[in-house]
Amino acid sequence: MDQKRFRIESDSLGPVQVPADALYGAQTQRAVENFQVSGLKPWYSFIESTAYIKKAAATVNCELGLLDPQIKTAICQAADEILSGKWTDQFVVDPFQAGAGTSHNMNLNEVIANRASQLAQNLKISPNDHVNMAQSTNDVIPTAIRIGCLLRLKELTDQLENLEAALREKAKDFQSILKSGRTHLQDAVPIRLGQEFGAYAEAVRKDIIRIQRAADDLRELGIGGTAVGSGLNAHPEFHERMVRELSRYTGIEFRCSENLFERMQSMADMADFSAALRTSALTLIRIANDFRLLSSGPETGLNEIILPALQPGSSIMPGKINPVMAEMLDMAMFHVIGCDTTISQAVQAGQLELNVMMPVIAHNLFEAQQIMIGSIHAFTDKCVKGIQANSEKAAHWLEANPIIVTALNPLIGYSAGAALVKEAYRRKISIKDLALEKAANGELDNKDSGEKVQESEIEKAFSDLYRMTDGGILS
Amino acid sequence: MDQKRFRIESDSLGPVQVPADALYGAQTQRAVENFQVSGLKPWYSFIESTAYIKKAAATVNCELGLLDPQIKTAICQAADEILSGKWTDQFVVDPFQAGAGTSHNMNLNEVIANRASQLAQNLKISPNDHVNMAQSTNDVIPTAIRIGCLLRLKELTDQLENLEAALREKAKDFQSILKSGRTHLQDAVPIRLGQEFGAYAEAVRKDIIRIQRAADDLRELGIGGTAVGSGLNAHPEFHERMVRELSRYTGIEFRCSENLFERMQSMADMADFSAALRTSALTLIRIANDFRLLSSGPETGLNEIILPALQPGSSIMPGKINPVMAEMLDMAMFHVIGCDTTISQAVQAGQLELNVMMPVIAHNLFEAQQIMIGSIHAFTDKCVKGIQANSEKAAHWLEANPIIVTALNPLIGYSAGAALVKEAYRRKISIKDLALEKAANGELDNKDSGEKVQESEIEKAFSDLYRMTDGGILS
Amino acid sequence: MDQKRFRIESDSLGPVQVPADALYGAQTQRAVENFQVSGLKPWYSFIESTAYIKKAAATVNCELGLLDPQIKTAICQAADEILSGKWTDQFVVDPFQAGAGTSHNMNLNEVIANRASQLAQNLKISPNDHVNMAQSTNDVIPTAIRIGCLLRLKELTDQLENLEAALREKAKDFQSILKSGRTHLQDAVPIRLGQEFGAYAEAVRKDIIRIQRAADDLRELGIGGTAVGSGLNAHPEFHERMVRELSRYTGIEFRCSENLFERMQSMADMADFSAALRTSALTLIRIANDFRLLSSGPETGLNEIILPALQPGSSIMPGKINPVMAEMLDMAMFHVIGCDTTISQAVQAGQLELNVMMPVIAHNLFEAQQIMIGSIHAFTDKCVKGIQANSEKAAHWLEANPIIVTALNPLIGYSAGAALVKEAYRRKISIKDLALEKAANGELDNKDSGEKVQESEIEKAFSDLYRMTDGGILS
Amino acid sequence: MDQKRFRIESDSLGPVQVPADALYGAQTQRAVENFQVSGLKPWYSFIESTAYIKKAAATVNCELGLLDPQIKTAICQAADEILSGKWTDQFVVDPFQAGAGTSHNMNLNEVIANRASQLAQNLKISPNDHVNMAQSTNDVIPTAIRIGCLLRLKELTDQLENLEAALREKAKDFQSILKSGRTHLQDAVPIRLGQEFGAYAEAVRKDIIRIQRAADDLRELGIGGTAVGSGLNAHPEFHERMVRELSRYTGIEFRCSENLFERMQSMADMADFSAALRTSALTLIRIANDFRLLSSGPETGLNEIILPALQPGSSIMPGKINPVMAEMLDMAMFHVIGCDTTISQAVQAGQLELNVMMPVIAHNLFEAQQIMIGSIHAFTDKCVKGIQANSEKAAHWLEANPIIVTALNPLIGYSAGAALVKEAYRRKISIKDLALEKAANGELDNKDSGEKVQESEIEKAFSDLYRMTDGGILS
Repeated sequence: MDQKRFRIESDSLGPVQVPADALYGAQTQRAVENFQVSGLKPWYSFIESTAYIKKAAATVNCELGLLDPQIKTAICQAADEILSGKWTDQFVVDPFQAGAGTSHNMNLNEVIANRASQLAQNLKISPNDHVNMAQSTNDVIPTAIRIGCLLRLKELTDQLENLEAALREKAKDFQSILKSGRTHLQDAVPIRLGQEFGAYAEAVRKDIIRIQRAADDLRELGIGGTAVGSGLNAHPEFHERMVRELSRYTGIEFRCSENLFERMQSMADMADFSAALRTSALTLIRIANDFRLLSSGPETGLNEIILPALQPGSSIMPGKINPVMAEMLDMAMFHVIGCDTTISQAVQAGQLELNVMMPVIAHNLFEAQQIMIGSIHAFTDKCVKGIQANSEKAAHWLEANPIIVTALNPLIGYSAGAALVKEAYRRKISIKDLALEKAANGELDNKDSGEKVQESEIEKAFSDLYRMTDGGILS
Repeated sequence: MDQKRFRIESDSLGPVQVPADALYGAQTQRAVENFQVSGLKPWYSFIESTAYIKKAAATVNCELGLLDPQIKTAICQAADEILSGKWTDQFVVDPFQAGAGTSHNMNLNEVIANRASQLAQNLKISPNDHVNMAQSTNDVIPTAIRIGCLLRLKELTDQLENLEAALREKAKDFQSILKSGRTHLQDAVPIRLGQEFGAYAEAVRKDIIRIQRAADDLRELGIGGTAVGSGLNAHPEFHERMVRELSRYTGIEFRCSENLFERMQSMADMADFSAALRTSALTLIRIANDFRLLSSGPETGLNEIILPALQPGSSIMPGKINPVMAEMLDMAMFHVIGCDTTISQAVQAGQLELNVMMPVIAHNLFEAQQIMIGSIHAFTDKCVKGIQANSEKAAHWLEANPIIVTALNPLIGYSAGAALVKEAYRRKISIKDLALEKAANGELDNKDSGEKVQESEIEKAFSDLYRMTDGGILS
Repeated sequence: MDQKRFRIESDSLGPVQVPADALYGAQTQRAVENFQVSGLKPWYSFIESTAYIKKAAATVNCELGLLDPQIKTAICQAADEILSGKWTDQFVVDPFQAGAGTSHNMNLNEVIANRASQLAQNLKISPNDHVNMAQSTNDVIPTAIRIGCLLRLKELTDQLENLEAALREKAKDFQSILKSGRTHLQDAVPIRLGQEFGAYAEAVRKDIIRIQRAADDLRELGIGGTAVGSGLNAHPEFHERMVRELSRYTGIEFRCSENLFERMQSMADMADFSAALRTSALTLIRIANDFRLLSSGPETGLNEIILPALQPGSSIMPGKINPVMAEMLDMAMFHVIGCDTTISQAVQAGQLELNVMMPVIAHNLFEAQQIMIGSIHAFTDKCVKGIQANSEKAAHWLEANPIIVTALNPLIGYSAGAALVKEAYRRKISIKDLALEKAANGELDNKDSGEKVQESEIEKAFSDLYRMTDGGILS
Repeated sequence: MDQKRFRIESDSLGPVQVPADALYGAQTQRAVENFQVSGLKPWYSFIESTAYIKKAAATVNCELGLLDPQIKTAICQAADEILSGKWTDQFVVDPFQAGAGTSHNMNLNEVIANRASQLAQNLKISPNDHVNMAQSTNDVIPTAIRIGCLLRLKELTDQLENLEAALREKAKDFQSILKSGRTHLQDAVPIRLGQEFGAYAEAVRKDIIRIQRAADDLRELGIGGTAVGSGLNAHPEFHERMVRELSRYTGIEFRCSENLFERMQSMADMADFSAALRTSALTLIRIANDFRLLSSGPETGLNEIILPALQPGSSIMPGKINPVMAEMLDMAMFHVIGCDTTISQAVQAGQLELNVMMPVIAHNLFEAQQIMIGSIHAFTDKCVKGIQANSEKAAHWLEANPIIVTALNPLIGYSAGAALVKEAYRRKISIKDLALEKAANGELDNKDSGEKVQESEIEKAFSDLYRMTDGGILS
């Protein structure tokens, strides 16, 4: 710090040296010095949502006659600058910081107070008495987390919807590709490639709904509870007006709380939102793994689908192309699951009036959201949209598959079918040929009537098999 | 096995020795021998839900003209016996078993087939061709898991509602108890004990809603998809009729599926349901921990609430009484979180048409549900309902708390307040007395006007503090 | 309880109705009534290890002149009966019970006291004053957990060693099977099937070492710390003598503690032991998944290895055989990971002198151990030992693989190799034929010298490739 | 990208626009474009360890006569610049990237190749053929992760040792402070504050040992396995020479591998190392929570220890001081636990010859290490070292505690003691006074002999209690 120039600021613990040109003040500076932990900085969502709160509070307090209109104007202007992306470099507190996020809150309070003082020129605006008026870290931070998640919700669900749409598009394209089903990775009855992709799309659709409904709980804001939920030092109308004002700024529908104590004690809605992200991560891992499996080879694997070639796959093996986007998605989703673990630990750790673990919840929620948005976007655009089916290979596998004997169950029963499969494997002939041969020889009995099964019945059963798969009982 | 008498049964792999008096058959016996893993048995929910499916399938297949009415009657009778709790000892397959739960499905198929054959006397009923008709493990097991969870849903939410009601009752009882708030476990502004309990009740209420909405996704059943989701070997009306029949038996509202492939591929709804249980677990751990903290002592801790004395607390320290129910609840909820981890691993592991990890999902979901039902019931009845407030102690703590200076913020500002607290700690006098003394000496300035603060203003601010806490901006 | 006959017992909270024929007493009965949670019972390891402690304590206290020899003899006899497997039905407390396991400790104290009183006839032996002499739940339970884990350690490592040996055996058998390597599930350079199995064996070997060294920390016992670690009410020699006595009974090497307070406060060694189980679980999941992949098909998958057929694989698809043991192992290991999550939650939750969450640690550790022992045994015996290689298929895949071009890197460089692969895919000819053709046509340049590459150089590079794979730089 | 100037580079997939001044090339640029996921950059440990490998490989290949000495010199110079912290801004690939970390490896290869070409002027050095010579991503990345962890191991254990030392110092300082023990947060027998801190120190000491022994497994390096572990394209001495060279550069003891296939397939040692970090995290959370509890209040809590005041604790409550360092440590450790979850997911996901999930393992391991180093340093320096005991408060609590009756167990037995506690609570007198009164009145019987207990015996028992606590059976 030697080469820099400093100014001296004071807080209730005494004087502090602050970089001369910093917009932040004493308490932020103390936090910078105290928390040299990760070297990381806050995710922008957290700065943004807190700035909205500060702007709304100045407006509401002014409307209520508690804050000088000039001060209000300066605070709002400073907050707007932050919301336009300015001053992001002034938010310097490590995510691993003071419990409850007092340092983050004070970072906002100080930057806004100092910037507002610059803008208003002749006014000295106080971080605590003006910018933080009628607020406490204890209601600001949970509110900022909830708002922050909702600020990026649409981005997230848009990406998931794009993914769903891309999968549905492929489902349509691949509807004609009949292929061998595989259960337990073992030969199973036929399915269409389009049906597989249709099911992926459906799974993603359900994830979106779950994320949206989990997010809905975050709309209930606790701002106005101040220090312990009782609303001490806030005007009786502050809570409701804040909720209205914040909705107005952001275009997001927020709700008043019926119990401000609960909003401060309990971060369960954040754990639930994180869990919805995790559920979606589980789906995406599954789909990515299926893509890796279906595109395996090409020469030594299943090779039923072809993923776009995006970059050389190996630093040593020339010509190798890997399913990089699917692998990236797996890793990104493992990370989201890790974030969820951290969040669930932190949510559990609330004590009495407050959960002081909020900063690590914030950090992990915002990181998880960013990583989902980024990874799903890349996966959809650079992988899913370019997938091609290898129908030749699909046909090749299907032809060899004896498990289509299942179609004969209603005719000859399970046990006789099992015997046919064994014989087909042994004699290396197709199950259909074998069944027709047996029927021709009068060696197959109807399981119920005991009468001889006819070749035409065999033919019909197999053709039904494909008809079924063509949509079966469902279109 | 030496002393027992056996009969010889066969399946597609050859003959097997089965205990002479067992209702199960060859495939169950193979599973018993193959899977000597935990020594555990299936949770009853899993037996029950599978039995409903078998009964419904027999009925539907009969209605559709595919199954002999006599056979149907015998199967339904056998299933009803299982549903009445009979034959539970015949379900002998370790939860850690064949992928997808083929062994569990066959255990049901075999017990029902053999019992039905006994009941029908002159009929030989087949496990595969009759009891499992138009079904596959692949659609039976996910359906059985979904139904099994819903079968106990009401029990679970009833227990949570009882807990919520008990907490609300206490909130009412404790509304008059003014106490010191604590944030960061440090002295904070006042709150009412009733407000704390009211917030707990509210948190539980939200958990119930989350569990119910997560459970709602489980209502969509995939029965009828058979082997890979295509419905092969099932009648076109089978799916819809099964859903209707199962709803009729259980009184639970089930829904048809729009995509049977998805219902077989994806167990994400189970992960999401488990996550809702986990979120509730986080809330309950928090509440239990608060109870342990608030009842700490009695002589060397906070001692603001008194939990019922249920059993001697120590094998060595006479007279010790511990918060055993809160501790038990913590442990039970840690276990539920562990179950959720297992489930999330398993849900992620689906491949192509199927998720073979279903048996471990089933085991952990049913265990988590049982443990939640049992632990919440015990906690509510034996702990929450008997909690008493120690209002004397609450008053004692509040009296000593200097942080009520916060009430003076609007008058004297944050910095002057901080200085008062320091002086009060140093001089060991109450903050109110100090503030009044300062005001009397004309040593306190209004933060905005700069005028001297009057003693009456101090009095008013403190009385407002308690009024606020009396409900504040919220009733 | 109506039909049973009862006796009345008393503890410090008053009288309790106990089943007339129960060996347990008032405190156990209270616990049975209080903790109707899971319906589960303690794992036998927990009963066994606690019985050893009771026996040792009676012996040591008697040696130290603090306990009547007749009482000692009766207690030891009763404990020996328990250790022989008798009276297991008398341990009736739900695993989800009183914090710290007071109820489990008292269950042992009461059963032993009552049984010892029966054996001694004319003596009235007290659960607290005699059986629990110089002990507290607080030192008994962590000691019992540590001992319980070590009691089954050899069983566990034996199973892992059997698995390692079976894998090594297969590695030897499969050393001659040259096959296509796969990285990213994509075609890669060759490897021997035996090398794959050798690496599995090596991974298991390392897991065993990790489990053993983690278990080593459990050998340090805290018995003798009594209530808070200070050893109050225990003879100064009690701790050391107990450690010696327990080693003598069990043949396990235990160590005295240097800090009895730490042994009571901290369960970190249990979390670490659980983590070693988890690490092993990760290895086993990976191996099981590889087996499922390599045995996939047989007609529609890789089919390079053939797992033993253990049971019919489908209730609907005749002839289907699934990799049931590998699937079971996956599920068992997911469960072990879930147990680890619970344990890590519980270990974290210690407060001040004690970690009251010990019962749930005990339950999950013992369950994880049982499941590992059972599942690894079944997997080794019924799956690994019977694996057969499909060398034909391995050769088939290798032949088609163009990535063996990598062997030409030192000759023609990475870029030229990549171009060859592209052309080989396009022209559907083998990479070797293509390279020879190009060399014959003088179209390949040495990457360093720029001279034309000769056909003989190509031949040599490919033959080196297989030599490398034959052991390469390592034998 | 419009305003920048570009150059055109090519790789096996075709031409790419690369920023004109970038040291990286085509493949890095593709990765930048493909993986716009988190916006994060690699942790420096990952760059550093990979640079060491590149330097060592150039040196070894040159020694073996495979690489031109001039090229070697240029590569080593370029690597040394990176190792001096230069060019860190050239490592631009998102941590969520191509499976196995091909993009990270190529980023190093390209930056070094281009920088080396600049340094060597007249030579064109190739990323693949020269910098990556005899290497594959598949052996480079696991080696880089192992080395990266070991590069910061000492920093980490130093921080833990400082913490241990600070705790031991406090244990010594606080040895004279007799206080009330608390188990279940309930009154328990006495302990010394120094004993509590001594146990914390001991717990940390054990964590250090566990971290070191887990780290030991990382010393076995797989470099030289190249593409699948067979060492294809590497000189037979390459592996051994690399291990030696890397040890020489870093001063860290590395070991050759006995099975290069295992080193590439299995990342279990990384999961185990992560688990050791997690175990330590569990200890630290426990200690931090105890500090928060013991320093609670000061007026409304236990207040037995006083943590240093580092920053104002509230934006609304003047004078509030929070245990910010303990809270920060909790959050940091929750994050480490989350990292461990991600790692365990990724380690499990290896398939056949490779685990492609290595990049997310690297990112989370390096992040966890950084956060542990930073948070433990801050916690030790700014919190632990400044802790003061509040001996007055400790004495106050002890005086009130009736559970010291335990000291009378050997005299009067458990039941009589329990009755005394009840009476003491009821009559609100001290347990000692009550016991003396009872003895004086001849109302206490010796539990064994039945004789009246004397007052002097009571006095002695209580004095023994404190003697015990003074060290008891252990010094």
